Amino acid sequence: MRIGITLGDIAGIGPEVLVKALASGKLSRRAQYVVIGDFCAMGRELERVKGRVRFRLYGDDCNRALKRVRHGFVHPLAARSAAHWIEQGVELCVDGTLDALVTAPVNKQGLKLAGVNHSGQTEWLAELTRTKKFAMMLAGGRLRVALVTTHLALSKVSKAISRKKILEVIELTDSELPRFGARNRRIGVAALNPHAGDGGLWGDEETRIIAPAIADARRKKINAVGPVPADTLFHRAYEGEFDAVVAMYHDQGLAPLKMLAFDTGVNVTLGLPFIRTSPDHGTAYDIAGKGIANPSSMIEAINLAVKLGVGQSSFGGPRSVVAVPRSGRRDGARPSKNPLNEL
Amino acid sequence: MRIGITLGDIAGIGPEVLVKALASGKLSRRAQYVVIGDFCAMGRELERVKGRVRFRLYGDDCNRALKRVRHGFVHPLAARSAAHWIEQGVELCVDGTLDALVTAPVNKQGLKLAGVNHSGQTEWLAELTRTKKFAMMLAGGRLRVALVTTHLALSKVSKAISRKKILEVIELTDSELPRFGARNRRIGVAALNPHAGDGGLWGDEETRIIAPAIADARRKKINAVGPVPADTLFHRAYEGEFDAVVAMYHDQGLAPLKMLAFDTGVNVTLGLPFIRTSPDHGTAYDIAGKGIANPSSMIEAINLAVKLGVGQSSFGGPRSVVAVPRSGRRDGARPSKNPLNEL
Repeated sequence: MRIGITLGDIAGIGPEVLVKALASGKLSRRAQYVVIGDFCAMGRELERVKGRVRFRLYGDDCNRALKRVRHGFVHPLAARSAAHWIEQGVELCVDGTLDALVTAPVNKQGLKLAGVNHSGQTEWLAELTRTKKFAMMLAGGRLRVALVTTHLALSKVSKAISRKKILEVIELTDSELPRFGARNRRIGVAALNPHAGDGGLWGDEETRIIAPAIADARRKKINAVGPVPADTLFHRAYEGEFDAVVAMYHDQGLAPLKMLAFDTGVNVTLGLPFIRTSPDHGTAYDIAGKGIANPSSMIEAINLAVKLGVGQSSFGGPRSVVAVPRSGRRDGARPSKNPLNEL
Repeated sequence: MRIGITLGDIAGIGPEVLVKALASGKLSRRAQYVVIGDFCAMGRELERVKGRVRFRLYGDDCNRALKRVRHGFVHPLAARSAAHWIEQGVELCVDGTLDALVTAPVNKQGLKLAGVNHSGQTEWLAELTRTKKFAMMLAGGRLRVALVTTHLALSKVSKAISRKKILEVIELTDSELPRFGARNRRIGVAALNPHAGDGGLWGDEETRIIAPAIADARRKKINAVGPVPADTLFHRAYEGEFDAVVAMYHDQGLAPLKMLAFDTGVNVTLGLPFIRTSPDHGTAYDIAGKGIANPSSMIEAINLAVKLGVGQSSFGGPRSVVAVPRSGRRDGARPSKNPLNEL
């Protein structure tokens, strides 16, 4: 199995956590790891782990200009490169060269600078692959939580959830659960209001929107249950009653999950034509370049990509790290032929 | 120290968890426990723990009609009695006979039947004691979470939070923290929107309302920090960075707390003229009368009341359980003189 990992915004902690993960000895031995990035951009991180990361180099792209990118600041070249690496990763997954994609964090302002207008990588990956139905799932500890809405003001959540959208996320969750090894596929669906509205006393989205969506799902033979009050649902899932939770909004899902799995949460995109995971942290400009970033979430993201990809690929070669340095076309470097064809 | 415990709605699990708590051997030995209820209503529960609960009986009120109340159904007499016991508990706390009040759960529909129009006991206790500034705090595991809004539709939360109300809850939290043994009184204040709005991208309540309230608190020398994104705040508090959290809405505070302390969460009312705690569950009509209710939260509620009351009272007599059976005036029984005067 071959897992691609995009280097992300090199002004952030992406390269650091990636190289630390590669050197950690904690990555699954069932896969080859292919870094989609630039050797010059990785160089300063690789020096820290000298000898502990074995890699082969394909192509000779090294954009020296990337060495001038300062940690902690949005840089147009770093942003364009990050965007380019994501596009490359998608291409390599779609054409079957790679079996899964792990993405290091990018900076949203940076993406904008690079001409990408999306609220995050997930939405952009969906566009690049022409995926209409997709959802963000967070996995950590024993919990798996899919989100109906993500980056949205709390005051807009009520209007943003719909019967159709909730059903869509339940269906995506149901269809991806077998990969996680969950055969029963029991899905707990969160209520929106305290005590699930307490019979309409505090909001009626439960009866008007959420319960009908669950009924739709059950008609499709999906084992979905709810709406369950959010303050008890996550504990019940943790105790093993549900294999996954469908949450209505970002913090509803993430606050309980991060109580359990603060450093080890992984973001999984449901619905893409290939497996995609990422650490659930951002570029962390405040600590970038200090060498103190925690690679746990990146390690988990990579290992989860391997786990989800089992059965996806017949390839199971010896473990090795394949760094693929490619400078971005966007900053004027010549396009190189795909070195992975030589593998 | 003398702790009063109201019996609550006897159609629910209140009497069961209370008697189980008294018989558990897990209650603090630093206090006397005074049940404010009716001996006939407690009778069927006391039979279960024969010999394991020692009590003295004051007065001879026993309303046989209460024996006819069926578990699991709203009953007007049970509701009126529950309301009456709360009023008695408040009186006994206000006049100094009791040092703290623990309340078993009541049924909201029942309270309405009894002519009490409040969204919960907390609001009613505030009215009974003419308390203007009060807040609900949940304590469980290592977390203490005070709520700015409680039982309210999620779509109304944004409009319900105000700079003044948030400051009020921060101040109440700050002033009560020493009772909990927290000398530093570090308070983490939650954001409303994902990633605290990410610089205004997803909602502006952080800059418009929450940050100014925190600034107000800091001007008053309160060590309040935030707005902190809700998905990381609770973990940080759990790790010891904060002594208490101020959450903007019900599920924001309760979902993470119940991940840690599902059966042991305690509801504390901040701002009342006396200490008041209660278990953080309801009447649980679905399991009432089956003998399977878990008394953990009631045990914690009683022990927390004792802990918070330390220093409040000089009374520290030997442990004993004092059951004070008093039938409700509301259902026509004659008023009895206060038997606690004989203590």
